[in-house]
Amino acid sequence: MVKDDCIIALATASGSGAIAVIRISGKDAITLCDAHFKSVSNKKLVNQATHTIHLGHILKDGKELDEVLVSVFKNPNSYTGENVVEISCHGSPYVQQEIMQLFLRAGCRVANPGEFTLRAFLNGKLDLSQAEAVADLIASDNEASHQVAMQQMRGGFSNEIKALRDELMNFASLIELELDFAEEDVEFANREQFKSLIDRITKVLKHLIDSFAIGNVIKNGIPVAIVGEPNVGKSTLLNALLNEDKAIVSDIAGTTRDAIEDELTIGGIGFRFIDTAGIRDTKDVVESIGIKKTFEKIDQAQVVIYLFDATQFKVQGSKFKVELEKIKNKYPLKPLIVIANKIDQVADTLIAEMQAEIPEIQLLSAKTGFGVEPLTNSLLKLINTGALRNNETIVTNTRHYDALLKAFEEMQKVKYGLETGISGDLLAIDIREALYQFGLITGNVTNDELLGNIFANFCIGK
Amino acid sequence: MVKDDCIIALATASGSGAIAVIRISGKDAITLCDAHFKSVSNKKLVNQATHTIHLGHILKDGKELDEVLVSVFKNPNSYTGENVVEISCHGSPYVQQEIMQLFLRAGCRVANPGEFTLRAFLNGKLDLSQAEAVADLIASDNEASHQVAMQQMRGGFSNEIKALRDELMNFASLIELELDFAEEDVEFANREQFKSLIDRITKVLKHLIDSFAIGNVIKNGIPVAIVGEPNVGKSTLLNALLNEDKAIVSDIAGTTRDAIEDELTIGGIGFRFIDTAGIRDTKDVVESIGIKKTFEKIDQAQVVIYLFDATQFKVQGSKFKVELEKIKNKYPLKPLIVIANKIDQVADTLIAEMQAEIPEIQLLSAKTGFGVEPLTNSLLKLINTGALRNNETIVTNTRHYDALLKAFEEMQKVKYGLETGISGDLLAIDIREALYQFGLITGNVTNDELLGNIFANFCIGK
Repeated sequence: MVKDDCIIALATASGSGAIAVIRISGKDAITLCDAHFKSVSNKKLVNQATHTIHLGHILKDGKELDEVLVSVFKNPNSYTGENVVEISCHGSPYVQQEIMQLFLRAGCRVANPGEFTLRAFLNGKLDLSQAEAVADLIASDNEASHQVAMQQMRGGFSNEIKALRDELMNFASLIELELDFAEEDVEFANREQFKSLIDRITKVLKHLIDSFAIGNVIKNGIPVAIVGEPNVGKSTLLNALLNEDKAIVSDIAGTTRDAIEDELTIGGIGFRFIDTAGIRDTKDVVESIGIKKTFEKIDQAQVVIYLFDATQFKVQGSKFKVELEKIKNKYPLKPLIVIANKIDQVADTLIAEMQAEIPEIQLLSAKTGFGVEPLTNSLLKLINTGALRNNETIVTNTRHYDALLKAFEEMQKVKYGLETGISGDLLAIDIREALYQFGLITGNVTNDELLGNIFANFCIGK
Repeated sequence: MVKDDCIIALATASGSGAIAVIRISGKDAITLCDAHFKSVSNKKLVNQATHTIHLGHILKDGKELDEVLVSVFKNPNSYTGENVVEISCHGSPYVQQEIMQLFLRAGCRVANPGEFTLRAFLNGKLDLSQAEAVADLIASDNEASHQVAMQQMRGGFSNEIKALRDELMNFASLIELELDFAEEDVEFANREQFKSLIDRITKVLKHLIDSFAIGNVIKNGIPVAIVGEPNVGKSTLLNALLNEDKAIVSDIAGTTRDAIEDELTIGGIGFRFIDTAGIRDTKDVVESIGIKKTFEKIDQAQVVIYLFDATQFKVQGSKFKVELEKIKNKYPLKPLIVIANKIDQVADTLIAEMQAEIPEIQLLSAKTGFGVEPLTNSLLKLINTGALRNNETIVTNTRHYDALLKAFEEMQKVKYGLETGISGDLLAIDIREALYQFGLITGNVTNDELLGNIFANFCIGK
C-alpha cells in the first residue's frame, strides 16, 4: 500500500481567487519542481532548507507560465511526511490548470481523495482517528462540530483508546504466556487486577458510546420540529433566532415543497428547524395527510416546539390544549417547548390566563424580540453541552461508534468468562477480538478496504 | 493615500477546500499574528527570518482554533512591500471565518478589492500597468490572454513607455531651460534630434495603438457569427471544434433564447460563436425579424461562417449562392468562411460541382471530424497571431488605449508646433501634456480617483 510516487492536487477551493495553492508530495517532489521552476535568486529548491519560501517562475517550454511562491517541506517535516512542495500561483483557473498539466506531464499523478492524509497516516504522522478528524474539521460548520473535530485531531480520543489498549494488551500477553506453561498451572496475570481493568475499560467504553448521542447531533445538527398553523409566525421566529445569533440561515430544499429546513447555529450548536403543517383535528383527506406528515417529522426530531398565536388563545385555546396533549401522549419523552407568540398584541390579563392554563408556556414576541433569549437558552439547555464545555471526549464517527460497541460486547464476554472461570485460551480469543476493535479505531489494525472507505470521503487535495 | 494599517482578506477562492490562505499585510502584521499564534517550537514569528514557514496553532481565548502553517514575509521582501503573514488554515468556511473574525477583532481591517496590489504599487513593488496586469492575469482564461497579461506584468509594456517618457522628459527640460534664457535666444534642445525623437515616439505609439485591436479580441474573445438554417449542423460543428481542442464549452444565456453564445478556446485563442437564424429571403414578418437579428449579429462579429448542408445543394444550391452574395455585398471586408457540411453523405461528383460553383468552399463532416482541422487553421489564420508569437507588446487595457491615443494626439501637436515654429512655452505645454498621458499609464502620474477606479475591479484578497 505504501507508495512514494509524486501526487499532485489543487489544495485550495476550486474557482477563481487571488491565489491558489497546488500541492505536490512524493519522494521526488522537490527535484521534479526544480525542473520546472526558476527562482529569482537562481537557486535550486533541493538545496534549500525545509519550511522556506522561494519567489520565481514556473516555466513551460522555456516560457514563464506564472510568477509563483514555492514552499519547500522536506521529509519527514511535512504534512505527508514525504518531500512536499506547495506552489502558490495566481488564482485563475487557467493558470491552475496549466501548472497542474505541466506537472502531470512531468510524471506526477492526480492525487486520490484524501491521499495526502492517507500518506500522512501511513508515514505515522497521525493515527487513523486523527486522520479522520481532518475531514471532519473541513466539513465542520459550527463551533461545536469544529471543537469536537479539533479535539479528535489533537488525539484526545485516540490517546484514551491507545492507553486502554496498551493495558489490555499487557494482560493478553500474560494470559497467553500462561498458555505456554499450561501444564504447570501458573497464573502470571493477576485476576483481581484484570477484573478491575475490565471494569475501568467497560466504564470508559460506556462513556464514549453514550457520547455518540451528543456527538452525532453536534456533527449533523439537532433536528427541531416546529408545530404550528400557518401565520402563527414560524418564519418570524426563525428570523428572530437568526438575529439573536447573527448566524447564517440556509434553505435546503427537500424532496417536497413542505420539507424546507432552516439551519441555524445557536450558541455554537447547529440546529435544523423543520417546519410542519400543524396537527389540527380534521376530516379533510388532504389535511389528514398533512397531519400524518407532521407526525413523521416529529418522529425524526429531537426537540418539538409547539408554537401558537396568543391573539387566538381566547377563541382557540381549548383546541391548542387538545393538540398539546396529543403531542405529549404520543411523545412522552421528547423535549417539548410551548410558545405563545405575538405576545406584544395581547393584554396582561390574557397572559396570566394562558400561564394558568398551560404552566410551561414561554412568552414570545418574535416581532419585537421579546422572549427570544429565554427560548435559545431553553434549546441549549435541552442539549447536554456540559461534555462540550468540559472538553470531554466525544465520539462523532459512526465507524468509531460501531467499533466501540463491538469492543464493549467483547469486554462483556471477557468479564463473563473471567467470572465463570473459562479456560485461558478462550479468554485470550475474546481479549484479542476486543484489541482488534480498539485497533480499528486508532489504525493499529487496518486493511486496504478499510482505508479505501475512510479516505474516499475526503476531498481531493487533502 | 499611503496607509500601513493591517489589512486582512481570504486570498484563495471562497468555499470549502483542503486548505485556505488568509493574508494579512501592514506594519504590525507579524506582531499581530504572534499575539494569536503559538508555534510548535514556541518561537515568536517576529524573530524569524523572512520567507520561512511555521507550524502551530491559532489561539482564540486560549483555545486552539486551528492547526495552521504561517508564512512570514518581512518588509520590503513581500508582495505588498510591507510585513506580511499568510495563514494556511484548514479549508472549512467556518475556520476561515473564525480566523478572519479573530484578527478583525484584534485590529485588522477587511482589505478593499485590490488593496494588497495597490499597496504593492504605492510601495514601488510594481508600476501601475504591472499592477493592472495582475487582475488581467487572474481573469485570463486562455493561453493568449494569459500570455499578454504575463508580458504586461513583467513590465514589457511599461518599460517601453518609460524609456520614451524619459527621453521626452529630457527634451522637455531642455526646452524649459531655454525659456529661462529667453532673452538670450539660445537653443539647448537640438531641433533635428527632437524631430527624430518625435517620429520615433509617434511610430511606437501608432504600433501600440494598432495592437489594441488584437489585444481587445485576445482579452474578450473573437466573436464569430455562424449563419445557417436550422438542422444544418451548427451544434455538431461546435462539438467537433470542441473535441478537436479539448477545450471547455460554456453556454451563456443571453437576453433572448436565440442569443446563446458558445465560448471555445482554439489554439489558445478565445472564440465566441454566435448562432444566428439564417438569412433566407422571406415575406413572412416573423421570419424577416429573425433575418434582421441575424444581420445585427453579423455586425457585431469579426468573422462570419456561412454553413450549409451539402445534401441540400442540388435542390437549394442557387439559394445558398444568393445568400452568400448578400453577405459579401453587405460586409465586403469581413472575413468569411464558407462551409459545406455533411460531406460524408454526398457523392464525389456533387463535391466537384460545389467546388466549381463556390471556389472558396471548405468541405466538412462535423460528424466524422473530416475538415475540422483545416477549419480551425482558417479561423486562426484570420487572427493576426504573429504579434503574439513574436512576443510583441500588445495593449489590452482600454485605459491604456485611451492614454496612448491622447499621447499620440499631443505628439502630433508637438510635431506641428515644431514644424510651424511656435514659441517654446507653447511647445513645452504640449510636451507636458504628452508626458502626463504617458505617466498615467505607468503610474508616475496618479490621483486617488484614478487608483480607486483601477483597483475597484480587483477581487478582494489580491
